[in-house]
Amino acid sequence: MLDMNDSERGAHIRRLDRKHVFTSWAAQDVVEPMPIAGALGSEFWDYDGHTYLDFSSQLVNVNIGYQHPKLVAAIQEQAARLCSVGPNFANDARSEAAALIAAQAPGDLDRVFFTTGGAEANEHALRMARVHTGRHKVLSTYRSYHGSVGNSMVATGEPRRWAAETGVSGHVHFWGPYAYRSPFYSVDAAQECERALDHLANVLMVEGPNQVAAILLETVVGTNGILVPPDGYLAGVRALCDRYGIVLISDEVMAGFGRCGEWFAVDRWGVTPDLITFAKGVNSGYVPLGGVIISERIAASFSTKPYPGGLTYQGHPLACASAVASIKIFQEEKIVEHARWLGTDVIGPELAKIADRHPSVGEVRGLGVFWAVELVKDRATREPLVPFNATGADAKPMADFTAACKERGLWPFVHFNGTHVVPPCTITEIDLRRGLSILDDALTVADGYYTGAE
Amino acid sequence: MLDMNDSERGAHIRRLDRKHVFTSWAAQDVVEPMPIAGALGSEFWDYDGHTYLDFSSQLVNVNIGYQHPKLVAAIQEQAARLCSVGPNFANDARSEAAALIAAQAPGDLDRVFFTTGGAEANEHALRMARVHTGRHKVLSTYRSYHGSVGNSMVATGEPRRWAAETGVSGHVHFWGPYAYRSPFYSVDAAQECERALDHLANVLMVEGPNQVAAILLETVVGTNGILVPPDGYLAGVRALCDRYGIVLISDEVMAGFGRCGEWFAVDRWGVTPDLITFAKGVNSGYVPLGGVIISERIAASFSTKPYPGGLTYQGHPLACASAVASIKIFQEEKIVEHARWLGTDVIGPELAKIADRHPSVGEVRGLGVFWAVELVKDRATREPLVPFNATGADAKPMADFTAACKERGLWPFVHFNGTHVVPPCTITEIDLRRGLSILDDALTVADGYYTGAE
Ligand SMILES: Cc1ncc(COP(=O)(O)O)c(C=O)c1O
Ligand SMILES: Cc1ncc(COP(=O)(O)O)c(C=O)c1O
Repeated sequence: MLDMNDSERGAHIRRLDRKHVFTSWAAQDVVEPMPIAGALGSEFWDYDGHTYLDFSSQLVNVNIGYQHPKLVAAIQEQAARLCSVGPNFANDARSEAAALIAAQAPGDLDRVFFTTGGAEANEHALRMARVHTGRHKVLSTYRSYHGSVGNSMVATGEPRRWAAETGVSGHVHFWGPYAYRSPFYSVDAAQECERALDHLANVLMVEGPNQVAAILLETVVGTNGILVPPDGYLAGVRALCDRYGIVLISDEVMAGFGRCGEWFAVDRWGVTPDLITFAKGVNSGYVPLGGVIISERIAASFSTKPYPGGLTYQGHPLACASAVASIKIFQEEKIVEHARWLGTDVIGPELAKIADRHPSVGEVRGLGVFWAVELVKDRATREPLVPFNATGADAKPMADFTAACKERGLWPFVHFNGTHVVPPCTITEIDLRRGLSILDDALTVADGYYTGAE
Repeated sequence: MLDMNDSERGAHIRRLDRKHVFTSWAAQDVVEPMPIAGALGSEFWDYDGHTYLDFSSQLVNVNIGYQHPKLVAAIQEQAARLCSVGPNFANDARSEAAALIAAQAPGDLDRVFFTTGGAEANEHALRMARVHTGRHKVLSTYRSYHGSVGNSMVATGEPRRWAAETGVSGHVHFWGPYAYRSPFYSVDAAQECERALDHLANVLMVEGPNQVAAILLETVVGTNGILVPPDGYLAGVRALCDRYGIVLISDEVMAGFGRCGEWFAVDRWGVTPDLITFAKGVNSGYVPLGGVIISERIAASFSTKPYPGGLTYQGHPLACASAVASIKIFQEEKIVEHARWLGTDVIGPELAKIADRHPSVGEVRGLGVFWAVELVKDRATREPLVPFNATGADAKPMADFTAACKERGLWPFVHFNGTHVVPPCTITEIDLRRGLSILDDALTVADGYYTGAE
């Protein structure tokens, strides 16, 4: 590979990739993953001279931006010191990471069970809840994603669950609030909140509230549309959980660590869950890491009785050292505050203007650096620009829009009939405005598919 | 922490650990994880001046030994280049790692689905098998460990499954060969093989062979006793799978990458499974990594139909770069060959002598750097030195033996009534002999609990 030029190198990587890498969520002969040659800050580039402004943060995980020099240095230092320490020992990086995460977490969430990613975090949170309560049933919402193993896959409330479902019993899906497409026929956010809570209370009633171990909720639903809960909803769910002794698990794998302009999205509503699951933003995925933050009450269930679960790479020193460095950088550079400001002062106002200009924009919603632009064929009927879970020709309008963004040097995050504005939390105002104006431009392609009156 | 001496630093880490780290498989108020301050080669040390020769390789994952300088350098280099690339892109480290792994894998196993560890690898292997066959049931053995999430936990055939079991339907456990405690009342290895295959054929018959998606097998059972299959067993299982169109999954998370003196343990018997799962030894856990190696036949099932599964940190560049470096180091330093030689010329002969000297040694068995010393109260009855899954006072004989090893500077791997000899594959002959002589010495403690005639 040494005597190849860049473009040959790119072709070589692509060839090896198609020959030997089995790609997730994809038909192997259909996907053509683009090789990334390098990245810095909010941009990455390929081997053929194209640079992209990243409005996706990969899978919404590179919160700190690419190749932050201090974070890279911390990983290099820890690599030189000690890479591998198993879970039955202690080590400084793991202790310090746990202490820092606990310090940011709300209420009495003071202990951390580390994993290597988000799915395993949810898996273990559900197990803790089941053993703690001695109950079996778990409730989660439709239009959610919780990961792709065992119970987290079963908990997932979107099509990625269908083909992967096995017979894990005891799982129930309910509807969460989504004012723009209200499952409850409500007319505003306040009514949506009230009805969503009433619906949940009814589901609990018919499922038997004393049978329910946990309610698992993305604090702000991510992949499935950046659905920000109306004020009062989380507090209402918390109250239902308290009434029936149900464990409230907040999945903040995507929403946590700055994404919502808060350390944890629950902080925005002052609600303390019993368990928080995290991954992604904790160290921006520089090294695989996730985990569960555990309240004292649940931890106490396992003070003399062993917790039944574990993994070889739990509290991995390299991963934990990168979390320590990342949290400190977040504090020093005020990244959470920056993310909040970008949301209130730049993204919110700019997307509002974009919505005014483009008929195909049905709704914009979000907070922090976590926004969705939902596209429709018709503003009056709110018919989505492409059908739910569309593929192939049905998905062409979104594919065309995606291509238009990429041609203009913007890498968008597209899901169903929406595009998400989820750049790194460290993006500069200038880059952010540049990206938004590319988005503005590319949306004319979506407008081309608009069939409504307006 | 900067102005502490070493021992104060150790105490500080311990304190933070107990306050904020939730430990796997443990009662939180009972465990006291020892902080590791540093490690090199086959040794690690604490903050109080104690150095241990590691006969456990942490969780049997540090095959290359601690802090191999070339491997550390490769991680540092990749960290400087690019830490985070999502699964929907290609990248050079991932392509190269997949190509190198495929090159070592037997038969037509030519594609790699990367995960961050072993449990997720098994999870996805089972999903591939279920979707590929359109069948639901999965068979695995008692006395096996396959990981601690969803389906891999259900597949696990030992007590760690009990408390974590949820109702994943369609899982069946059968008995694998274990000549020393034959479930089939056989008198030698050949008969054990024959009867174990007959048993499996019978289980298939009553479960309905056309209902079975996969047979999941640790090629050599690891944690649950280093159970080496008799010659002919794997070929027999392969034949049964072929007859009924069942996917054969070899779990080589622990047995693979040098541990058995082979790249893959199946190589020893010349058997090609349909899927191999790996983790641990692929990069010695320097960065969390695991995966599934996939045959062309199964990959073809997903050439135009999407594979339903994935994870954010799939094919993580830092992890993949460390796998590339590790495999090259294995080749350059002939680590696989070294491991095989240690098994045949040092561990095997030395353990045979140890068995002669100590009545409490019921059996020694193994290959490569993967050996078990099984302890009994009575050689005639083969009653285990401690009961199956013993805890507390019942486990005292093993706890005393463990303490005796640690006092003498050896860190053993103890499970139920056995101690495993599983140092890094790179251990020097001198260190290995030193460790074996400590083991020899410590076994007099086990002999103290012997009640048999001899
Ligand atoms: C909310 C949420 N939970 C869980 C997960 C799963 O995390 P991972 O892919 O690390 O397993 C994701 C991944 O996108 C997520 O967005
Ligand atoms: C044979 C086997 N399979 C799977 C696993 C699970 O791997 P992980 O702990 O990385 O999830 C292990 C771990 O010890 C194992 O030994």
